Amino acid sequence: MDSAIVLFAHGARDPEWSAPLVRLRTAIERAAPGLAVHLAYLEMQGPGLPEVLETLARAGARRISVVPVFWSRGGHVTKDLPPLLAQWQTRHPAVQVQVLPALSDLPGMDGFLAQAILGFAQPAQ
Amino acid sequence: MDSAIVLFAHGARDPEWSAPLVRLRTAIERAAPGLAVHLAYLEMQGPGLPEVLETLARAGARRISVVPVFWSRGGHVTKDLPPLLAQWQTRHPAVQVQVLPALSDLPGMDGFLAQAILGFAQPAQ
Repeated sequence: MDSAIVLFAHGARDPEWSAPLVRLRTAIERAAPGLAVHLAYLEMQGPGLPEVLETLARAGARRISVVPVFWSRGGHVTKDLPPLLAQWQTRHPAVQVQVLPALSDLPGMDGFLAQAILGFAQPAQ
Repeated sequence: MDSAIVLFAHGARDPEWSAPLVRLRTAIERAAPGLAVHLAYLEMQGPGLPEVLETLARAGARRISVVPVFWSRGGHVTKDLPPLLAQWQTRHPAVQVQVLPALSDLPGMDGFLAQAILGFAQPAQ
């Protein structure tokens, strides 16, 4: 295992909240068989991000993509995530960690959402 | 104006947090010219959802689609949103209000995200 993806989400008290993350992990694994995809949470549930990164590094991951599964680039992404990564990276300087954009900043998201929303809204025009 | 869409998001202290919502509103308006698209927030910034719904009803909206711009169907969508809508609806029983699925439950979202994420992650296979 050289490359890995970590879906990093907020976490919630309701365990059902994670179901879409599990679905997303499955979708990624189907699209890229053999790629390791893991879930990590900021709070309210585990495992946490440092724990998951540690496990991946020990398993031999050299390149980890962290996906902030947050709608927008708010405080959780800009303030909470960087120190978690920086602190972990000091112990594993050789592992390349890449942080992807937040969901709303992924290429094509606006157009995809507009069509998905209009498919439901079916406005009278 | 008969139909309207309300993008209902959490809200944040950082005003920049709203920028993707404004972009999404623009994308929907471009895809459906003439359709009214409004932003409403749960907390930390305004306007709130009841205020926006009130304005739309007074402007003649008969059919309003509320889009929960939240990654997953957590407490904000299942516990905070319904009473806001129910309380408002008692004053406007004739207005048809439809709540769309949360982002992760929109059709095609898993596949779209998987491709978008893999486009960045470019795993060694």
